[in-house]
Amino acid sequence: MVKMKYIVFLIQCPDQKGLVSRISTFFYEKSFNILHCQQYTDIAQNQYFMRLKLDLDCLPSSRGNLEREFEEFARALNLEWSVHYSDHLQRVAILATKSPHCLYDLLMRQQEGEISCQIPVVISNHPDLESVADKFRIPFYCFPTSKENKSQQELQIRKLLKQHHIDLVVLARYMQILSEEFVKEYPQKIINIHHSFLPAFKGPNPYQQAYDTGVKMIGATAHYVIAELDEGPVIEQDVESVTHEHSNKDLEQIGRDIERIVLARAVKAHLEHRIIVSKRRTIVFSTGV
Amino acid sequence: MVKMKYIVFLIQCPDQKGLVSRISTFFYEKSFNILHCQQYTDIAQNQYFMRLKLDLDCLPSSRGNLEREFEEFARALNLEWSVHYSDHLQRVAILATKSPHCLYDLLMRQQEGEISCQIPVVISNHPDLESVADKFRIPFYCFPTSKENKSQQELQIRKLLKQHHIDLVVLARYMQILSEEFVKEYPQKIINIHHSFLPAFKGPNPYQQAYDTGVKMIGATAHYVIAELDEGPVIEQDVESVTHEHSNKDLEQIGRDIERIVLARAVKAHLEHRIIVSKRRTIVFSTGV
Amino acid sequence: MVKMKYIVFLIQCPDQKGLVSRISTFFYEKSFNILHCQQYTDIAQNQYFMRLKLDLDCLPSSRGNLEREFEEFARALNLEWSVHYSDHLQRVAILATKSPHCLYDLLMRQQEGEISCQIPVVISNHPDLESVADKFRIPFYCFPTSKENKSQQELQIRKLLKQHHIDLVVLARYMQILSEEFVKEYPQKIINIHHSFLPAFKGPNPYQQAYDTGVKMIGATAHYVIAELDEGPVIEQDVESVTHEHSNKDLEQIGRDIERIVLARAVKAHLEHRIIVSKRRTIVFSTGV
Amino acid sequence: MVKMKYIVFLIQCPDQKGLVSRISTFFYEKSFNILHCQQYTDIAQNQYFMRLKLDLDCLPSSRGNLEREFEEFARALNLEWSVHYSDHLQRVAILATKSPHCLYDLLMRQQEGEISCQIPVVISNHPDLESVADKFRIPFYCFPTSKENKSQQELQIRKLLKQHHIDLVVLARYMQILSEEFVKEYPQKIINIHHSFLPAFKGPNPYQQAYDTGVKMIGATAHYVIAELDEGPVIEQDVESVTHEHSNKDLEQIGRDIERIVLARAVKAHLEHRIIVSKRRTIVFSTGV
Repeated sequence: MVKMKYIVFLIQCPDQKGLVSRISTFFYEKSFNILHCQQYTDIAQNQYFMRLKLDLDCLPSSRGNLEREFEEFARALNLEWSVHYSDHLQRVAILATKSPHCLYDLLMRQQEGEISCQIPVVISNHPDLESVADKFRIPFYCFPTSKENKSQQELQIRKLLKQHHIDLVVLARYMQILSEEFVKEYPQKIINIHHSFLPAFKGPNPYQQAYDTGVKMIGATAHYVIAELDEGPVIEQDVESVTHEHSNKDLEQIGRDIERIVLARAVKAHLEHRIIVSKRRTIVFSTGV
Repeated sequence: MVKMKYIVFLIQCPDQKGLVSRISTFFYEKSFNILHCQQYTDIAQNQYFMRLKLDLDCLPSSRGNLEREFEEFARALNLEWSVHYSDHLQRVAILATKSPHCLYDLLMRQQEGEISCQIPVVISNHPDLESVADKFRIPFYCFPTSKENKSQQELQIRKLLKQHHIDLVVLARYMQILSEEFVKEYPQKIINIHHSFLPAFKGPNPYQQAYDTGVKMIGATAHYVIAELDEGPVIEQDVESVTHEHSNKDLEQIGRDIERIVLARAVKAHLEHRIIVSKRRTIVFSTGV
Repeated sequence: MVKMKYIVFLIQCPDQKGLVSRISTFFYEKSFNILHCQQYTDIAQNQYFMRLKLDLDCLPSSRGNLEREFEEFARALNLEWSVHYSDHLQRVAILATKSPHCLYDLLMRQQEGEISCQIPVVISNHPDLESVADKFRIPFYCFPTSKENKSQQELQIRKLLKQHHIDLVVLARYMQILSEEFVKEYPQKIINIHHSFLPAFKGPNPYQQAYDTGVKMIGATAHYVIAELDEGPVIEQDVESVTHEHSNKDLEQIGRDIERIVLARAVKAHLEHRIIVSKRRTIVFSTGV
Repeated sequence: MVKMKYIVFLIQCPDQKGLVSRISTFFYEKSFNILHCQQYTDIAQNQYFMRLKLDLDCLPSSRGNLEREFEEFARALNLEWSVHYSDHLQRVAILATKSPHCLYDLLMRQQEGEISCQIPVVISNHPDLESVADKFRIPFYCFPTSKENKSQQELQIRKLLKQHHIDLVVLARYMQILSEEFVKEYPQKIINIHHSFLPAFKGPNPYQQAYDTGVKMIGATAHYVIAELDEGPVIEQDVESVTHEHSNKDLEQIGRDIERIVLARAVKAHLEHRIIVSKRRTIVFSTGV
């Protein structure tokens, strides 16, 4: 199956009459085929959100021209927008520490074509996961961290990410807190998997917290990273039932399956340009056509 | 909270360029505020589906005028369409036999405003559920059925439905098979709840079938009724995990909770004009705004 | 179907060799048929838990005799235990405020035999739900509350509960905080439904909190009430997926279905003597035979 | 964490008074520590099932002695039984065709210690998955199959399984039907993953069948293989919701995650000796301690 090449416009603006008509007509008049048009109106905030997927083969002139013309059009309607082309294969860096399950999962999905991206580097603060990266022939960089060298270590990572023109950073059970500078450099471009159903059980050892609290379900949360720990906009969550019979170790094991799937879904939604962030909330459009 | 009054257009047609633009512009030029616009393209069938929700207060002239003008517009694009006004409170008849759980559930939701409709009649082939209808002060009609009078009994029911100008018939565990004539009289206007995860366990005693087969989940299916038994387009399904410990009786009890919720969701989707049927499949648009 | 009459023993003690053998032999020697024997060992706490279900028809002499002999036996092994007879129909009081959905659900299940108990009173601090109780012919008591009369109002409720020999108090969306004295009077005999996935979103307006936080699932939690608000041992939890499209009102509506089911399961587990509390955690044995 | 070494007895027999007492006393008198004792009575069949987990360090004499003494004891009570020692690491052969996801998943879980076994061989009728086996340094055997050589090819596989003393055969999306002789050679020792919620959508292309039928959930089923295709006792099932928006390809991709998890859970349950088969049904005891 040959996948269709496409353009995605992500748009948000104050709600106003005629938005669907005016935006869709802009593209219709340029002879674009609209493959999918998804919308959401946040009535409480009076804010409008749209995801437009266009057939890239319909592009009449250059991308620069299209963007300049849309910019002009957008100014009149007060649109915030971004545009994404499916033939730009995004570059993803995976950061992990010692747990291999999320790393394995992402590498396998990328290799099998379930998520569409390049993964030029795997980075860790421990050497343990080198063999996993090796299996998939991905370069592995280990920057051990200590109290003294923490900021130094982070600078090395950020340098490496720049060298590799990284579009998205995935924290696949990376057990270090990123500095505010790091986070600001990649706004809505760092996805973390937290091994609890946030906002329950922030911080370390959420499975132990869950066990001690005696909850009957455990979960995982994929979210964009912001400066405040475990507070970024939630992209995806899932849970699984547990009983009193499950030990702390059992919760960890059951949790790994939830983490894998929740993180993969979030990364996939991001790579397919299906997410718009609005303050603390995310609009995540469905998979669609 | 005052609910906004609205108009819903349900549209389907062969896919073609410019549909979003042309349809939305039709309404924009009539000064309509589009509250929600949902679409789906079935690529395999080259068929396009749209649900448009408009602010009823924007209606410029009469409903008749709007419909005539849209009909003219629709002909050019080869659209099949229907229109629905939120201030027409739909009239729902509930048919049940002896199990009260789905009947209770629908009456309670209607009374609490979770589903928006009138329920002028409850009809049964047994007297058992009269007390339930009484609790909610809904007229209860009992038409006992036997091998001899079956077609006669059905005629009485159909007459009653006509007298009450029924828009939707809900089979809330009604243990009789409707005749082909009955079904044809209410195309996509009869919803049945089947107590299995169709297409598994068609026909009678699905929980016994499930128990004997040793499945690890049981389910329920709400579907439109067509002439072929348990074959109509599926609207909603859900399941629950079970174990070897659950007896046939346990399955029935667990199943009742699934049936209640699945049927209520399907009825709600229908009443909110969120369903378009396309051959054997349903397009069920999300709840939206 | 005639339900078998049974005796349930709930036992906990420090773990030690030979418990299964010695306890089961105690009953075997008295000619009891063990219908079901469920166990759990909390290794971290070195604590053993057992639920034994016996055929009541095997009772060799009087209940008093059985209990005295078991007490003697239990002392040697340092067992904490309680015994329950299925022919004692427990008496449940439901407290609610204005939301009818949980009240309806419990009354309907009790009437249909899904939960086995008597419900001699429905108590509220508002008159709104009288019509619901009336439908099921249950006496309804309204004790309006104000800042000034709060402790007075609670005394009236407690008096009523005593008069009716209440075994279990169910807070079915009762929007008042019980005093410490009230709670102490009914240890592990008050079940509350909280409309969030605890420990997330304690306190008032959990759906609004969930909406503002932008979580992708909402839930409900049934727990025993202790002096600390929303901190008691969790009995049952469940969740449902939501999206950005769901308004705060939608979350409330979806939540109601979760609340109903979670509360009903917890009440059923309690009435069937399937719960043992161990500090903050509950051991909830499965439905079993 | 050092895992405790243990013995598992799986027992079934006609139900009769005193079974718990007599069986547990047998082991108590031999000074065994019972780590976990799980039971189930199938009332309809009057059949009793037990799983006993004992501390292996308590073994008083030789395994042979224990088994001989238990055999004698069992004869009197008419017990069918089997015994399993945790220090015998079971040998698992994985058969697959072209889809790598289940193979990857099992190899990863085995490597990470989530499932406890050896995997001495991966066998396929196509060369595609050699690179996956290579990544984990597992010997890969390819026996291409054609209409002419089918029975010959199967003989080669069976010979290889014998050479490697295989305890369990896992069909991880193996697209060949096994002969009756093969199946009989490994009774309750071949686990297959079928990519539908059985008994719905037996046979080939279940996702296409699901798409065409328009179901709103898709699932996967792990079951023991018997001579009748897709009819063996179900061990584990799970499902995921889908909508009209999901294409056939989407269903396949969503389905892969269900298949992985369902197969892994079934293999884990088998390796932990938690399954007893009773005619078409499986008793699957919970994870327990």
